[in-house]
Amino acid sequence: MTDIKEKLSTFTQDFNSQLGEFFPLPEGPEKRVVQAMEYSVMNGGKRLRPFLVTECAALFGIPAEKSFRTAVALEMLHSYSLIHDDLPAMDNDDLRRGKPTCHKQFDEATAILAGDGLLTYAFEIISDEKTHPRPVIRSRLVRLLAEAAGAFNGMIAGQMLDIYAENLKNPNNAEKLIKNIEEMKTGRLLRYACEAGAVLGNAQGEKYQALIDYSRRIGIAFQIADDILDVEGDQNLVGKKLNKDAEQGKITFVSIYGLPKAKQIAKDFITEAEQVLNIFGNKAKTLKELARFIIERKS
Amino acid sequence: MTDIKEKLSTFTQDFNSQLGEFFPLPEGPEKRVVQAMEYSVMNGGKRLRPFLVTECAALFGIPAEKSFRTAVALEMLHSYSLIHDDLPAMDNDDLRRGKPTCHKQFDEATAILAGDGLLTYAFEIISDEKTHPRPVIRSRLVRLLAEAAGAFNGMIAGQMLDIYAENLKNPNNAEKLIKNIEEMKTGRLLRYACEAGAVLGNAQGEKYQALIDYSRRIGIAFQIADDILDVEGDQNLVGKKLNKDAEQGKITFVSIYGLPKAKQIAKDFITEAEQVLNIFGNKAKTLKELARFIIERKS
Repeated sequence: MTDIKEKLSTFTQDFNSQLGEFFPLPEGPEKRVVQAMEYSVMNGGKRLRPFLVTECAALFGIPAEKSFRTAVALEMLHSYSLIHDDLPAMDNDDLRRGKPTCHKQFDEATAILAGDGLLTYAFEIISDEKTHPRPVIRSRLVRLLAEAAGAFNGMIAGQMLDIYAENLKNPNNAEKLIKNIEEMKTGRLLRYACEAGAVLGNAQGEKYQALIDYSRRIGIAFQIADDILDVEGDQNLVGKKLNKDAEQGKITFVSIYGLPKAKQIAKDFITEAEQVLNIFGNKAKTLKELARFIIERKS
Repeated sequence: MTDIKEKLSTFTQDFNSQLGEFFPLPEGPEKRVVQAMEYSVMNGGKRLRPFLVTECAALFGIPAEKSFRTAVALEMLHSYSLIHDDLPAMDNDDLRRGKPTCHKQFDEATAILAGDGLLTYAFEIISDEKTHPRPVIRSRLVRLLAEAAGAFNGMIAGQMLDIYAENLKNPNNAEKLIKNIEEMKTGRLLRYACEAGAVLGNAQGEKYQALIDYSRRIGIAFQIADDILDVEGDQNLVGKKLNKDAEQGKITFVSIYGLPKAKQIAKDFITEAEQVLNIFGNKAKTLKELARFIIERKS
């Protein structure tokens, strides 16, 4: 575990140190929206999705600097989803990673625009030829990202289903519902992270599929771990109010299975995630460690 | 004028009749967001931007069916901007073209997601190979659209500047401010419409530039005409509450120049717009008529 924590920490620092150049400030008062975008992206977490892009591409010999911009675009898009999720009309959260959420730090209109701006910027970054010299790769990366983030079976659909589920008292299909929400709301972007690495590495057939299989397993485990942290995490480490799910009567993997079984399910998925990577031999060591880290993290 | 009104009306009907297939409903409750997207897009206006894409591409012999998907993508993006503009935290409008705005018809969370969904969908549509067989064209269309709609000098920057200007009582640089807002908030998407037509038509040099010059002139004239309609339009035709600008003390081309001078400026821009199209000879007849229609429309 020490190994992967150090690797991830080094990656995060390196990634963050290069992000500043993506936010050149306009001269006029419209710079406010760029400041809000930068504020939200720089209030960064572990950069798990960028790390996945980089590590998956590395399996095919692609050096980190060549997958960097795709990783940045994905993080921009992820940040947009957090800003809009936090809005008063959505989750109405005041804190995100221990700091004021975007609409608290700026205002609601600016936060809506900052989210829109980051979503748009993700596509601008990917479609730039600096991201990849071949237009066919850029175009494919755009397409996959739009599908993963979209309203048809993508992240937005997951968010809509999540809102629907919040208003149900005792859904009779809670297990199916929570799996569908996870698959779309969290799972699709994690899948994109791995798939983008595969596309950048020109992966084919079994290897391409192995990365998708891996992403699905860590995706569910990641969501279960999130639900567990909400119950027994350390509020200072997690950086947001805990026990929120239970207070709101939200269905989660923990509310459905109970804590012990939820932990076991997450563990089993991680074991499977490690196994599907065997096709890559020793090269997948970091991705295997990362899978385990996902259910053992404290924040 | 009858000619262009009929042409535009035929185009609008044809365009609308093909839009339904872009909103396949998911089976689960998450379909709500797709219904909200469809509701907003189908509550359509004149489809001016799609018409511009189609007519500009036609200058280079590109048939309407080959520019159709690019036109659809632009309209999706335009619709997203209207949904988010209407939100309580932004303009707080209850009506759009005589019908309840998206957050009134559905709810605020769904409207935020529907906007996000349409923005994302625009990029999904363009990056699909059905839009253009050459990836280099698709990638370029994505890049230009993201820049036009974005937070750095694009539509989002214009929206941010517009919000800033609303809070100023007597700005001492009102003329410069209103021009900057127009250029970014309205102008960039109209420019994209023409530029996308040029890209689809593989336009080069002077002809490419002529379409950009045309788009800038009709863009300003379009905004001036909007400001004039807010003062002396017919509420039933315009489909929203009038005199809103004056009530809110908003700076507009009319508040700065007065009605007669604003009308003259718009007319002059339209004359210039017609002139820059002379390079295309008779082929640009429709686009010239459209320029004039922009300042003579009643809605």
